[in-house]
Amino acid sequence: MVAALDLFQEQGYEKTTVIEIAERAGLTKSTFFRHFPDKREVLFGGDTMTARVIEGISAAPAAATPLEAVANALDAVGREAFTPARREFIARRRAVIAANPELREREALKGIGLTASMTGALERRGIPGLTACVAAELGALAWKIAYQRWSDTANGDEFSEVARRTLGELHAATSSC
Amino acid sequence: MVAALDLFQEQGYEKTTVIEIAERAGLTKSTFFRHFPDKREVLFGGDTMTARVIEGISAAPAAATPLEAVANALDAVGREAFTPARREFIARRRAVIAANPELREREALKGIGLTASMTGALERRGIPGLTACVAAELGALAWKIAYQRWSDTANGDEFSEVARRTLGELHAATSSC
Repeated sequence: MVAALDLFQEQGYEKTTVIEIAERAGLTKSTFFRHFPDKREVLFGGDTMTARVIEGISAAPAAATPLEAVANALDAVGREAFTPARREFIARRRAVIAANPELREREALKGIGLTASMTGALERRGIPGLTACVAAELGALAWKIAYQRWSDTANGDEFSEVARRTLGELHAATSSC
Repeated sequence: MVAALDLFQEQGYEKTTVIEIAERAGLTKSTFFRHFPDKREVLFGGDTMTARVIEGISAAPAAATPLEAVANALDAVGREAFTPARREFIARRRAVIAANPELREREALKGIGLTASMTGALERRGIPGLTACVAAELGALAWKIAYQRWSDTANGDEFSEVARRTLGELHAATSSC
Protein backbone atom coordinates (compact mmCIF):
# COMPACT_ATOMS: atom_id res chain seq x y z
CA MET A 1 0.00 0.00 0.00
CA VAL A 2 1.60 3.25 -1.19
CA ALA A 3 0.44 5.45 1.74
CA ALA A 4 2.04 3.15 4.29
CA LEU A 5 5.26 2.78 2.31
CA ASP A 6 5.55 6.59 1.95
CA LEU A 7 5.14 7.05 5.70
CA PHE A 8 7.60 4.25 6.56
CA GLN A 9 10.19 5.90 4.30
CA GLU A 10 9.48 9.44 5.54
CA GLN A 11 9.51 8.78 9.28
CA GLY A 12 10.49 5.16 9.80
CA TYR A 13 8.41 2.02 10.28
CA GLU A 14 8.62 2.09 14.10
CA LYS A 15 7.42 5.68 14.43
CA THR A 16 4.47 5.31 12.05
CA THR A 17 1.10 4.54 13.64
CA VAL A 18 -1.83 2.69 12.12
CA ILE A 19 -3.91 5.87 12.54
CA GLU A 20 -1.44 7.84 10.42
CA ILE A 21 -1.51 5.18 7.69
CA ALA A 22 -5.31 5.08 7.70
CA GLU A 23 -5.52 8.89 7.51
CA ARG A 24 -3.02 9.12 4.64
CA ALA A 25 -4.92 6.41 2.75
CA GLY A 26 -8.31 7.97 3.48
CA LEU A 27 -9.53 5.01 5.56
CA THR A 28 -11.01 4.82 9.04
CA LYS A 29 -9.03 2.84 11.60
CA SER A 30 -11.70 0.12 11.68
CA THR A 31 -11.64 -0.23 7.88
CA PHE A 32 -7.85 -0.55 8.09
CA PHE A 33 -8.09 -3.39 10.58
CA ARG A 34 -10.72 -5.12 8.48
CA HIS A 35 -8.14 -5.34 5.68
CA PHE A 36 -4.95 -5.81 7.71
CA PRO A 37 -4.71 -7.55 11.10
CA ASP A 38 -1.66 -5.46 12.08
CA LYS A 39 0.72 -2.74 10.87
CA ARG A 40 3.20 -5.16 9.29
CA GLU A 41 0.55 -6.83 7.18
CA VAL A 42 -0.02 -3.67 5.16
CA LEU A 43 3.13 -4.46 3.11
CA PHE A 44 2.15 -8.08 2.47
CA GLY A 45 -1.33 -7.78 0.99
CA GLY A 46 -3.06 -10.62 2.80
CA ASP A 47 -3.32 -13.93 0.99
CA THR A 48 -3.93 -12.84 -2.62
CA MET A 49 -0.45 -14.00 -3.67
CA THR A 50 -1.09 -17.47 -2.23
CA ALA A 51 -4.27 -17.81 -4.27
CA ARG A 52 -2.46 -16.73 -7.50
CA VAL A 53 0.32 -19.23 -6.92
CA ILE A 54 -2.04 -22.13 -6.26
CA GLU A 55 -4.08 -21.27 -9.37
CA GLY A 56 -0.90 -21.02 -11.44
CA ILE A 57 0.20 -24.51 -10.44
CA SER A 58 -3.19 -26.16 -10.88
CA ALA A 59 -3.73 -24.47 -14.28
CA ALA A 60 -0.50 -25.96 -15.74
CA PRO A 61 -1.03 -28.59 -18.50
CA ALA A 62 -1.43 -32.15 -17.21
CA ALA A 63 1.85 -33.20 -18.86
CA ALA A 64 3.87 -30.40 -17.21
CA THR A 65 6.82 -31.44 -15.01
CA PRO A 66 6.78 -30.22 -11.38
CA LEU A 67 9.12 -27.33 -12.24
CA GLU A 68 7.07 -26.39 -15.32
CA ALA A 69 4.02 -26.12 -13.06
CA VAL A 70 6.05 -23.96 -10.67
CA ALA A 71 7.15 -21.76 -13.58
CA ASN A 72 3.47 -21.31 -14.43
CA ALA A 73 2.92 -20.00 -10.89
CA LEU A 74 5.83 -17.58 -11.25
CA ASP A 75 4.25 -16.30 -14.49
CA ALA A 76 1.09 -15.57 -12.50
CA VAL A 77 3.10 -13.64 -9.89
CA GLY A 78 4.65 -11.54 -12.66
CA ARG A 79 1.28 -10.92 -14.27
CA GLU A 80 -0.61 -10.02 -11.08
CA ALA A 81 1.88 -8.54 -8.63
CA PHE A 82 5.38 -7.93 -10.01
CA THR A 83 4.26 -5.94 -13.06
CA PRO A 84 6.51 -3.39 -14.81
CA ALA A 85 4.27 -0.57 -13.50
CA ARG A 86 4.80 -1.73 -9.93
CA ARG A 87 8.57 -2.29 -10.14
CA GLU A 88 9.53 0.98 -8.47
CA PHE A 89 7.05 0.45 -5.65
CA ILE A 90 8.31 -3.12 -5.14
CA ALA A 91 11.94 -1.95 -5.02
CA ARG A 92 11.03 0.67 -2.36
CA ARG A 93 9.04 -1.93 -0.42
CA ARG A 94 12.02 -4.28 -0.53
CA ALA A 95 14.30 -1.59 0.99
CA VAL A 96 11.83 -0.83 3.80
CA ILE A 97 11.50 -4.53 4.67
CA ALA A 98 15.28 -5.06 4.59
CA ALA A 99 15.74 -2.23 7.11
CA ASN A 100 13.34 -3.62 9.73
CA PRO A 101 13.72 -6.91 11.64
CA GLU A 102 9.97 -7.18 12.40
CA LEU A 103 9.15 -6.86 8.72
CA ARG A 104 11.89 -9.33 7.78
CA GLU A 105 10.34 -11.82 10.19
CA ARG A 106 6.90 -11.36 8.66
CA GLU A 107 8.37 -11.77 5.17
CA ALA A 108 10.17 -14.95 6.26
CA LEU A 109 6.93 -16.46 7.57
CA LYS A 110 5.06 -15.46 4.40
CA GLY A 111 7.75 -17.17 2.35
CA ILE A 112 7.31 -20.41 4.31
CA GLY A 113 3.54 -20.19 3.84
CA LEU A 114 3.88 -19.66 0.08
CA THR A 115 6.29 -22.58 -0.23
CA ALA A 116 3.88 -24.82 1.70
CA SER A 117 1.04 -23.71 -0.59
CA MET A 118 3.11 -24.57 -3.66
CA THR A 119 3.95 -27.98 -2.17
CA GLY A 120 0.26 -28.66 -1.50
CA ALA A 121 -0.77 -27.58 -5.01
CA LEU A 122 1.91 -29.84 -6.54
CA GLU A 123 0.78 -32.80 -4.41
CA ARG A 124 -2.77 -32.28 -5.66
CA ARG A 125 -1.36 -32.85 -9.17
CA GLY A 126 -0.30 -36.31 -7.98
CA ILE A 127 3.37 -35.45 -7.42
CA PRO A 128 4.90 -37.45 -4.52
CA GLY A 129 5.52 -35.54 -1.28
CA LEU A 130 9.30 -35.14 -1.29
CA THR A 131 9.45 -34.28 -5.00
CA ALA A 132 6.74 -31.67 -4.43
CA CYS A 133 8.76 -30.28 -1.50
CA VAL A 134 11.93 -30.00 -3.57
CA ALA A 135 10.17 -28.43 -6.58
CA ALA A 136 8.40 -25.90 -4.33
CA GLU A 137 11.66 -25.07 -2.55
CA LEU A 138 13.46 -24.51 -5.88
CA GLY A 139 10.50 -22.36 -6.96
CA ALA A 140 10.71 -20.29 -3.78
CA LEU A 141 14.46 -19.85 -4.26
CA ALA A 142 13.98 -18.83 -7.92
CA TRP A 143 11.30 -16.37 -6.78
CA LYS A 144 13.62 -14.82 -4.18
CA ILE A 145 16.62 -14.49 -6.52
CA ALA A 146 14.48 -13.28 -9.44
CA TYR A 147 12.77 -10.73 -7.18
CA GLN A 148 16.17 -9.25 -6.35
CA ARG A 149 17.44 -9.35 -9.93
CA TRP A 150 14.23 -7.91 -11.36
CA SER A 151 13.67 -5.15 -8.77
CA ASP A 152 17.32 -4.05 -9.06
CA THR A 153 17.07 -3.34 -12.80
CA ALA A 154 14.91 -0.63 -14.37
CA ASN A 155 13.78 -1.40 -17.95
CA GLY A 156 15.06 -4.94 -17.77
CA ASP A 157 13.19 -8.15 -18.58
CA GLU A 158 9.76 -8.83 -17.14
CA PHE A 159 9.58 -10.72 -13.85
CA SER A 160 8.33 -13.96 -15.37
CA GLU A 161 11.26 -14.08 -17.84
CA VAL A 162 13.80 -13.45 -15.07
CA ALA A 163 12.09 -16.04 -12.85
CA ARG A 164 11.96 -18.74 -15.56
CA ARG A 165 15.63 -18.18 -16.41
CA THR A 166 16.59 -18.36 -12.72
CA LEU A 167 14.55 -21.52 -12.20
CA GLY A 168 16.35 -23.12 -15.15
CA GLU A 169 19.74 -22.17 -13.70
CA LEU A 170 18.80 -23.64 -10.29
CA HIS A 171 17.54 -26.84 -11.91
CA ALA A 172 20.83 -27.17 -13.77
CA ALA A 173 22.74 -26.53 -10.51
CA THR A 174 21.08 -29.53 -8.80
CA SER A 175 23.21 -31.86 -10.93
CA SER A 176 26.43 -30.48 -9.39
CA CYS A 177 25.25 -30.79 -5.77
CA MET B 1 16.07 -22.83 28.04
CA VAL B 2 14.01 -25.18 30.23
CA ALA B 3 12.68 -22.54 32.67
CA ALA B 4 11.19 -20.48 29.84
CA LEU B 5 9.71 -23.50 28.09
CA ASP B 6 8.08 -24.70 31.33
CA LEU B 7 6.50 -21.28 31.86
CA PHE B 8 5.32 -21.01 28.24
CA GLN B 9 3.63 -24.41 28.56
CA GLU B 10 2.15 -23.71 32.01
CA GLN B 11 0.69 -20.27 31.38
CA GLY B 12 1.17 -19.51 27.67
CA TYR B 13 3.88 -17.58 25.82
CA GLU B 14 1.93 -14.30 25.73
CA LYS B 15 1.24 -14.22 29.48
CA THR B 16 4.80 -15.02 30.54
CA THR B 17 7.04 -12.05 31.36
CA VAL B 18 10.82 -11.83 31.09
CA ILE B 19 10.93 -11.22 34.87
CA GLU B 20 9.17 -14.53 35.52
CA ILE B 21 11.57 -16.40 33.22
CA ALA B 22 14.60 -14.79 34.85
CA GLU B 23 13.27 -15.61 38.36
CA ARG B 24 12.54 -19.24 37.47
CA ALA B 25 16.02 -19.59 35.95
CA GLY B 26 17.70 -17.82 38.88
CA LEU B 27 18.92 -14.89 36.76
CA THR B 28 18.55 -11.14 37.21
CA LYS B 29 16.63 -9.31 34.51
CA SER B 30 19.81 -7.60 33.30
CA THR B 31 21.65 -10.92 33.03
CA PHE B 32 18.72 -12.25 31.02
CA PHE B 33 18.93 -9.38 28.55
CA ARG B 34 22.69 -9.82 28.24
CA HIS B 35 22.03 -13.33 26.92
CA PHE B 36 18.79 -12.76 25.01
CA PRO B 37 17.76 -9.51 23.30
CA ASP B 38 14.06 -10.33 23.76
CA LYS B 39 11.62 -12.93 25.12
CA ARG B 40 11.39 -14.87 21.86
CA GLU B 41 15.13 -15.34 21.61
CA VAL B 42 15.21 -17.51 24.73
CA LEU B 43 14.01 -20.48 22.61
CA PHE B 44 16.57 -19.93 19.84
CA GLY B 45 19.86 -19.88 21.73
CA GLY B 46 21.55 -16.98 19.96
CA ASP B 47 23.96 -17.84 17.18
CA THR B 48 25.64 -21.01 18.47
CA MET B 49 23.86 -23.15 15.88
CA THR B 50 25.14 -20.93 13.07
CA ALA B 51 28.73 -21.38 14.25
CA ARG B 52 28.34 -25.19 14.43
CA VAL B 53 26.90 -25.33 10.92
CA ILE B 54 29.66 -23.20 9.40
CA GLU B 55 32.34 -25.30 11.15
CA GLY B 56 30.66 -28.51 9.95
CA ILE B 57 30.77 -27.37 6.33
CA SER B 58 34.33 -26.05 6.42
CA ALA B 59 35.62 -29.18 8.20
CA ALA B 60 34.35 -31.50 5.43
CA PRO B 61 37.10 -33.22 3.37
CA ALA B 62 38.30 -31.21 0.36
CA ALA B 63 36.90 -33.81 -2.05
CA ALA B 64 33.41 -33.74 -0.51
CA THR B 65 30.52 -32.79 -2.80
CA PRO B 66 28.38 -29.79 -1.75
CA LEU B 67 25.74 -32.09 -0.24
CA GLU B 68 28.37 -34.17 1.58
CA ALA B 69 29.65 -30.96 3.18
CA VAL B 70 26.05 -30.08 4.14
CA ALA B 71 25.61 -33.57 5.65
CA ASN B 72 28.71 -32.89 7.74
CA ALA B 73 27.00 -29.78 9.11
CA LEU B 74 23.85 -31.78 9.93
CA ASP B 75 26.06 -34.27 11.84
CA ALA B 76 27.35 -31.34 13.90
CA VAL B 77 23.78 -30.23 14.65
CA GLY B 78 22.94 -33.74 15.85
CA ARG B 79 26.08 -33.90 17.98
CA GLU B 80 25.74 -30.48 19.60
CA ALA B 81 22.04 -29.61 19.72
CA PHE B 82 19.67 -32.40 18.71
CA THR B 83 21.12 -35.05 21.01
CA PRO B 84 19.08 -38.04 22.28
CA ALA B 85 19.10 -36.50 25.80
CA ARG B 86 17.52 -33.31 24.47
CA ARG B 87 14.90 -34.94 22.26
CA GLU B 88 12.02 -34.50 24.68
CA PHE B 89 12.92 -30.86 25.31
CA ILE B 90 13.17 -30.24 21.56
CA ALA B 91 9.76 -31.84 20.94
CA ARG B 92 8.17 -29.62 23.64
CA ARG B 93 9.93 -26.56 22.22
CA ARG B 94 8.60 -27.42 18.76
CA ALA B 95 5.00 -27.57 20.09
CA VAL B 96 5.34 -24.19 21.84
CA ILE B 97 6.74 -22.55 18.69
CA ALA B 98 4.02 -24.07 16.49
CA ALA B 99 1.34 -22.59 18.76
CA ASN B 100 2.59 -19.00 18.59
CA PRO B 101 2.77 -16.80 15.46
CA GLU B 102 5.49 -14.52 16.93
CA LEU B 103 7.69 -17.53 17.64
CA ARG B 104 6.98 -19.01 14.21
CA GLU B 105 8.13 -15.72 12.67
CA ARG B 106 11.36 -15.76 14.67
CA GLU B 107 11.95 -19.39 13.69
CA ALA B 108 11.35 -18.53 10.02
CA LEU B 109 13.93 -15.73 10.14
CA LYS B 110 16.44 -17.97 11.95
CA GLY B 111 15.95 -20.56 9.21
CA ILE B 112 16.75 -18.01 6.52
CA GLY B 113 19.84 -16.92 8.45
CA LEU B 114 21.08 -20.50 8.80
CA THR B 115 20.52 -21.19 5.10
CA ALA B 116 22.46 -18.03 4.20
CA SER B 117 25.31 -19.13 6.53
CA MET B 118 25.43 -22.54 4.85
CA THR B 119 25.47 -20.88 1.42
CA GLY B 120 28.37 -18.63 2.50
CA ALA B 121 30.34 -21.54 3.97
CA LEU B 122 29.85 -23.55 0.75
CA GLU B 123 30.98 -20.60 -1.39
CA ARG B 124 34.16 -20.36 0.69
CA ARG B 125 34.86 -23.96 -0.39
CA GLY B 126 34.92 -22.65 -3.97
CA ILE B 127 31.42 -23.83 -4.89
CA PRO B 128 29.73 -21.50 -7.42
CA GLY B 129 26.97 -19.24 -6.04
CA LEU B 130 23.82 -20.88 -7.41
CA THR B 131 25.04 -24.41 -6.67
CA ALA B 132 25.84 -23.31 -3.11
CA CYS B 133 22.33 -21.81 -2.84
CA VAL B 134 20.66 -25.01 -4.01
CA ALA B 135 22.78 -27.28 -1.77
CA ALA B 136 22.11 -25.04 1.26
CA GLU B 137 18.38 -24.97 0.48
CA LEU B 138 18.26 -28.79 0.20
CA GLY B 139 20.19 -28.96 3.48
CA ALA B 140 17.71 -26.62 5.19
CA LEU B 141 14.80 -28.68 3.87
CA ALA B 142 16.43 -31.93 5.05
CA TRP B 143 17.02 -30.30 8.44
CA LYS B 144 13.36 -29.27 8.73
CA ILE B 145 11.93 -32.64 7.68
CA ALA B 146 14.46 -34.60 9.77
CA TYR B 147 13.72 -32.39 12.79
CA GLN B 148 10.04 -33.33 12.54
CA ARG B 149 10.73 -37.03 11.93
CA TRP B 150 13.31 -37.25 14.70
CA SER B 151 11.43 -35.27 17.36
CA ASP B 152 8.22 -37.25 16.67
CA THR B 153 9.84 -40.60 17.47
CA ALA B 154 11.13 -41.66 20.89
CA ASN B 155 13.97 -44.21 20.79
CA GLY B 156 14.36 -43.88 17.02
CA ASP B 157 17.52 -43.20 15.05
CA GLU B 158 19.85 -40.37 15.99
CA PHE B 159 19.27 -37.00 14.34
CA SER B 160 22.29 -37.20 12.05
CA GLU B 161 21.15 -40.57 10.64
CA VAL B 162 17.63 -39.29 10.01
CA ALA B 163 19.03 -36.10 8.45
CA ARG B 164 21.48 -37.92 6.14
CA ARG B 165 18.75 -40.29 4.98
CA THR B 166 16.38 -37.37 4.34
CA LEU B 167 19.05 -35.43 2.44
CA GLY B 168 19.65 -38.49 0.24
CA GLU B 169 15.92 -38.79 -0.48
CA LEU B 170 15.70 -35.09 -1.39
CA HIS B 171 18.75 -35.35 -3.64
CA ALA B 172 17.14 -38.31 -5.43
CA ALA B 173 13.90 -36.31 -5.77
CA THR B 174 15.66 -33.52 -7.70
CA SER B 175 15.90 -35.84 -10.72
CA SER B 176 12.10 -36.08 -10.98
CA CYS B 177 11.50 -32.33 -10.77
